[in-house]
Order: sequence, then C-alpha cells, then structure tokens
Amino acid sequence: MPGLAAANDCIKCRSMVGNAILNVASEGSDLGHPPFGGVGIALPHLTRIGCIYLDYNATTPIFPEVAREMAPFLYEHFGNPSSGHTYGRACKAAVDTARRRVASLISAQDPAEVHFTACGTESDNWAIYGAVMAARQRQRQAGGASSSSSYSPSAPPHVVTSAVEHPAVLVHLEHLQQQGLLTYTAVPVDGEGLVSPSDVAAAVTPATVLVTIMHSNNEVGAVQPIADIADAARAAAAAVGGSDGGGGLLVHTDAAQSTGKVELEVGSLRVDAMTLVGHKFGAPKGVAALYVRRGVQLANYFYGGGQEGGRRAGTENVMQVVGLGAAAELAEAEGPALRSHMAAMAQRLLAAVLRGVRPEDRDKLRLNGPSDASRRLPNTLSLSIRGLNSPLALQRLSEQLAASAGAACHSGDAQSVSAVLRAMKVPVEYAAGTLRLSTGRHTTPQEVDRAAELILAEARRQGALG
Amino acid sequence: MPGLAAANDCIKCRSMVGNAILNVASEGSDLGHPPFGGVGIALPHLTRIGCIYLDYNATTPIFPEVAREMAPFLYEHFGNPSSGHTYGRACKAAVDTARRRVASLISAQDPAEVHFTACGTESDNWAIYGAVMAARQRQRQAGGASSSSSYSPSAPPHVVTSAVEHPAVLVHLEHLQQQGLLTYTAVPVDGEGLVSPSDVAAAVTPATVLVTIMHSNNEVGAVQPIADIADAARAAAAAVGGSDGGGGLLVHTDAAQSTGKVELEVGSLRVDAMTLVGHKFGAPKGVAALYVRRGVQLANYFYGGGQEGGRRAGTENVMQVVGLGAAAELAEAEGPALRSHMAAMAQRLLAAVLRGVRPEDRDKLRLNGPSDASRRLPNTLSLSIRGLNSPLALQRLSEQLAASAGAACHSGDAQSVSAVLRAMKVPVEYAAGTLRLSTGRHTTPQEVDRAAELILAEARRQGALG
Repeated sequence: MPGLAAANDCIKCRSMVGNAILNVASEGSDLGHPPFGGVGIALPHLTRIGCIYLDYNATTPIFPEVAREMAPFLYEHFGNPSSGHTYGRACKAAVDTARRRVASLISAQDPAEVHFTACGTESDNWAIYGAVMAARQRQRQAGGASSSSSYSPSAPPHVVTSAVEHPAVLVHLEHLQQQGLLTYTAVPVDGEGLVSPSDVAAAVTPATVLVTIMHSNNEVGAVQPIADIADAARAAAAAVGGSDGGGGLLVHTDAAQSTGKVELEVGSLRVDAMTLVGHKFGAPKGVAALYVRRGVQLANYFYGGGQEGGRRAGTENVMQVVGLGAAAELAEAEGPALRSHMAAMAQRLLAAVLRGVRPEDRDKLRLNGPSDASRRLPNTLSLSIRGLNSPLALQRLSEQLAASAGAACHSGDAQSVSAVLRAMKVPVEYAAGTLRLSTGRHTTPQEVDRAAELILAEARRQGALG
Repeated sequence: MPGLAAANDCIKCRSMVGNAILNVASEGSDLGHPPFGGVGIALPHLTRIGCIYLDYNATTPIFPEVAREMAPFLYEHFGNPSSGHTYGRACKAAVDTARRRVASLISAQDPAEVHFTACGTESDNWAIYGAVMAARQRQRQAGGASSSSSYSPSAPPHVVTSAVEHPAVLVHLEHLQQQGLLTYTAVPVDGEGLVSPSDVAAAVTPATVLVTIMHSNNEVGAVQPIADIADAARAAAAAVGGSDGGGGLLVHTDAAQSTGKVELEVGSLRVDAMTLVGHKFGAPKGVAALYVRRGVQLANYFYGGGQEGGRRAGTENVMQVVGLGAAAELAEAEGPALRSHMAAMAQRLLAAVLRGVRPEDRDKLRLNGPSDASRRLPNTLSLSIRGLNSPLALQRLSEQLAASAGAACHSGDAQSVSAVLRAMKVPVEYAAGTLRLSTGRHTTPQEVDRAAELILAEARRQGALG
C-alpha cells in the first residue's frame, strides 16, 4: 500500500516504549503465526464459538487478510485525508489504493467512478434520490427556456423497480412518493424470483428517469438478467420519447449480495450505477460503495465538504475503506476458487438434507429460486420445509446454527412471511418453513454436514418430517 | 461489555491453532504491555513519526483505550445485530452498550434518543432534511382537513442558521433551497464569531421549522449561546404564530467540535437534536450520532430496514459504534482533566509564540474568536500573523508540524480566505496568515514549545516577523 510503512505486511504484537500499542507487522514474525486463512479454511473464532455459521448473506466475518490491512488504521494511521500534512497524506494514499482496488474488481474504467459510502442503504438511497433530484434540476432548467422537456412539472420523475428489492430501495421509493417527489412502479417476479426485461420495458414511461433492479436477491439468490433489463429499458425509453431533458434513463443495480459470488463487470452489465456492500464479502460493516459511471448526472445525497471528488461529503472512513479495498482485491484474486468452494458447500448441504428425508416426505421440500444454477448465487439455499416453523427452529438452534428465516437485516419481521417469497407466490405452508442457508469462504464440509443433521433433527422434532 | 466474553478486558496477542488471530485480551497480560495512555501522555506513533500533531480539530488519533475495545470487533465479533443467533446477539449487545454510553455523556434521558450515523455530515444533513420533510408531511395532512396550517403550500418550510456553519449544514441548505424544498436565512456573527440570540429570533418566520446553529466553531472555537438561542427562537416562533401544524420549531446544534472539550447536556442546552462526531474525540472516522429528543417529529434520512429503532436504516457499523461508545465513556470519565490539559497546552503554545515576537511586531498577531475564555473551546487557537502565507507555511512544515489553514475537511479551498474568517470580518491581511492550531489529549509541553519555534522560524523566513 503506497504511502504506508512496510510495517503493514505482517502480524505481530509489539510493545512500544512508554505505551502499549498493538501493531500489525510482517508475516513470518517472531511470534510464529501461521499464514492466514484462505478459501475453505475455518476461522478460529467460528470454530471456537461452536455455532455453525451459515448466514453469510446477512454478513460475513471480516476476512483475516482484510483485518490485517485494517489494523494499522486502528492503531497507527489516523490522519484526515483532507489534511495536507504527513498524517493526512498517508491516509489519502490508502483511500486512493482502496478505490483502485474496488474499481478493478468491477472493471470500472476510472477509479473516480467509485464512491465510498456508509452502507448499502446509503448507496441505494443515493442512487434513487440522485436520479430524481438531477431530473428535477433538468426539468427546472428546461422549464423557462423551452418546452423540450417531455413531461410537465406536474408529473414528477418516475422510477421502475421490482417487487423483490431490498427495503433500502422499496421503502425509500415509498417515502419519496409520499412526499410527491417521484412515482414508481414495481414490476412482479416469476415463481423463481426472476424479473422479466419485457415487464421492465412495459413499465417505462416518458417520465421514467431510473430503473433500479437488484443484481441478485438476498433471500433466494436469483441473479437478474441486468444487461437485458438495461437494454430493454433504454429501448423502451427511446420508444416512448423519454426520458426528460437529456439526462437519459439511468440504470442502477444493487449488487450487495453479488460481490465475490458472481462476476460483476459494470461494462457488460451496462449499468450506470451499482451498489457494493463491504460486509457481504469480507470487509467490515459500515462501508459500501456506489459506482457511478463517468458523465452520469446524479445529484449528491450527502452535502458538505468536497470529499469523494465532490460527490459524497463526509470525512472518509479510512480504516473501513482500507478494508473494503482489501476485500475487493481478495475477491478478485480468489474469484473462481471462492465461488467453487461456496457452491460445493451449498450443494453438499442440500444433498445432506435430501439424504435424510424419506422418499414419501420429499414433496415437503422446496428449493426456492431459479432452477437454472447459472441464474442463482452459488452460496444461497432458500429451503422450505412444509410444516416447519422456521423462526422457531432458528430460535431453538441459535447457539448451534446461525442462519436466517427472513432477510437478516430486518429479521424482527420474521413472524410474517417474507415479501420476497410472497412476490414469488411461494405457498404459505412452504414460506413459513423457509430457512435461508448461505455458505461462505470459511464454511467447511464438516459444518454443512452437521448443519444438515441439526435441521433434519429439528424438523423431525416439530413433526414436519418423519 | 455485556454479551461479550471476558476476553475483551485485556490486551495480548494470541496465536490460535490453525490460523493467526490477533486478539485483544486482558490488561496485565503475559506480554507485559504497560497500561494505556491517559491525558497528556504521548502516543508512540505520534512521537515516532516526529511530526507534531496540532490538528485535533481535523481529527484525533483513535485513543488507545478506544482501539482496545474495538479490536475484538475487527478480529472476532462480526455478527449482524439484526440476526437472532449468537453471533448477532453479541454485536447487538455491544451496540446497546455504546448507545447507553453516548446517552450518558450528553445526559440524554433515554438511550433510544441516540442514533448512530456514518459521519457528522450525515447527522447534519439528516437534521435538516428530517425537519423539512416532517413539516411537509404535516402540511399535507393539514391541507385537506383544515386551514389550520399557518403557511400555505406555496411557502416551503424555512430554516434559520448562521453564516459560520459547517458546509454539511450550509451546502445542504443551499441544495434543498435550489430544489424548492425549503428557504433559509443565515444570520451573521460578530467579530468574535458569536451568534446573537436576538438575530436568530428576528429571522424566525411563521414558516420556520428548524433553527440549526453549531455548538462551537471548528476554526475559531467560538462556543455559541445555544440555550439562549433556543429560548429566543422558540419565543419568536410563538410570537409570530409559527411553526406549522403542531410540530413545533426544532432546534438542532452541530456539536461536532464540542464533545470532550466542553460540557454537553442536551437538557440544559434545550436542543431537540444534536450532532456528535466520533473522530473529534478519540473514536474512529466513520461513525457519528444524531441525538433526537423523544417525541420530536423528524423524518428519516436513510430508508430501508428497521435499524436504530426504525429511524436510521442500514446495517450497524458495529466496530466503530463500539469505538464511539468507548470514546464517550472516556470523555465522560476524563472530562475536567482532559479539558484542563488541552487548555494548558493551548495557552502554553500561545505564550511561547508571543514570547518570540518582538514588541514592535505584536500588532501583527491576532487571536481570532471570543476574547472571553469561557466562550471558546479550550484547545483551539486561530492565530493570524499579518504578512504570513499560512498555506505555504503549512506546506513547508508538513513533515514537522500538522495544523490547518482553513477547515481541514475541505482544505483544498485553502487558497481562498476561510468563509468563517470572512463572516467575522477578519481583515484579509490577517486572514491569509491564519493558522488553526488545535491541541488534544496526547499533546505534550515539549511539542507545543517546539511548534512555537517552528512557527516563529517560518514567519521570520517569510519576512512576516523580525
């Protein structure tokens, strides 16, 4: 990492004269730590706690390689990147490095297209607010000068989304619609959770300024045909004479669940903006990014100082931005190996569950999401067992197996059937017995075998399976 | 910290079977680390780098006691607080503890009044957006039913602020005004940087829904009479028949620079909302808070999941929230001692500079900000030297002395005279030679003595002083 001492290549604990300081130094240190994890190797704090972690879609652990790069920013480097002195410069260099790494992971043309944010919610909220406010601004500017704007000021900007988006999209759209600042249309999904490009195209109106469709679904793992959706939406906008005053229709995708799990290239996805979330691929919670293609008109969401190229005010979260960069580099380096591992673990888990189910009970099981493996995340199993009370099952197993019934970031709502499963028209007797099991980099075969046993035993205890 | 293993009470570096893990364990460990810092004790990474750090208002180092509490969340505890399983519960407990600690520091009545955010910018942006959107909502609700709303839909909500606010307030107000969503009035300050309560009162109109005035100024350290401002504003709102439909006038203060430096009690300040920023008092960059008094109508800024009591969506930044809580506890415990230390260091620095100035040059010096020490931050010296080019001075000294010319978070603008000094009508020949020197917890007498020498030498080299 340019601008930082070599001290950050290795691990040891160092005592400094006069004070205690934990410092992260070079590998192969005199403390004799073995090298870090790697795909498929158990993390000691997971095995020590003894609770099998199959909730990677809720959050991943911070990967050890990532923590190693972050530690100097916890103990040592603390400058404000906006400061011109030596403390500030070291941190600015670290932020620049992280930006390049994230840009490389998603094949962005220019690191300046990557903007660091606090969380996926901020990134999603920003994409929507930014598109709508930019459109209002164009509308206002066009208002006096000409009538070239293809929709009247009485028609607020319009957004197309899907019924299975994260609440960071749907709740924000609902808020802005209530405030009269936009209208939106949520297209349905099919029984496998997939959005149809033609449905998106049909929803586009002359006032449509944004299409925002998630890259993959957090609950059932459906990977949407984003490039096809983008093409269909743009063609529809051209056909209906939209969008407004020259900004063009913007296409945003929330790729929170996709990073590290499938290839993500902004060019081949043909998106204008994309949300990435650190804690879904080995970086800490509290850091995310919004890719915004160069030249795209998107109003800011945070207003204040000139950070992030003037597009996102707020002092940089240096330590966690460093973590996001390290996780991006790791994801790029490990790509196929990591994806194979996660898929193998998910398949092994599914096979182990199926082996334990009597033939006459097989119809009680249902795997939600696309049947075509190339259209689903490799790590996600949304498994329904008819007759199971899945929130109760997870509560009973909460010290032995970590998984989700609904989406983890709002599992307080787990009493009610998940909105995603409802949109997919999963029958309620299956939906109520749905476990979301998500494998990850540090999942082991032993863990998934044991998880299958625990799930089967609980289903039998509840009388759902014989 | 409830819910976490005792492992987090002490410091040591532990190797785990199969993998390397740095773990933070109990003090007095077998590695024999001496106890941590404390007020006035130099941090090893500051002394090692050898650049005197007098830029605490830009950002503080993460205090070692804070880093110690954060480390387990870097290396070990990683759950999503929304998850019901053991990983999630440990993190939820840690977030709850942090919330209680922050609430205690500011004497909030209920920890639920403290909402964690990403940065001061988010907190300030939220306070403004939230007040305005809540007012629009009331306006809409009142619209159909009655004409009790005291301003028409054609008059957007109005905000009163000051000319010396942080850009997170002023730039956001400007944006929302351009979007037609509010109007605002920025009251002036006097030559010492102080806002007059009667000016604020005079700016209140029937449409005023928010008064937002910073608690203390980041550049010159002026501590505003917030309680008097709040009283005057509320009295004025009552007199003019405002504010709208029952929500009442809200008073917000940005206390980013005040935490740990002056007493902050939300009750005696009589504010409805207050911004706190972690990296100004020993917590990391990337975490802040917005206090919102119970019962206050403030719309959300982040929309999505139900985190933070349904008021700020987004997965919690657990590690840094823990840091914010630890810093709050430290600030509360050290309060008077820390403030005395910072004041002593600032006074020593000022005295050392003055000693080096010939009597005939004394009129070339100017200390900006309130002359009454009780109305200024104890740690902040805004020192102008007529004839000095302060950005050039800081550039030349950038490896020896870390300080600011403008406000650090947007020092890219340092070419132009700071807006704060302009608002105070500091003559340009002084403003252009202004150094902001801010002391902190780990500043030592040796450092400030040396800093004075460096400043004097540079001023002489530039010919500003003889």
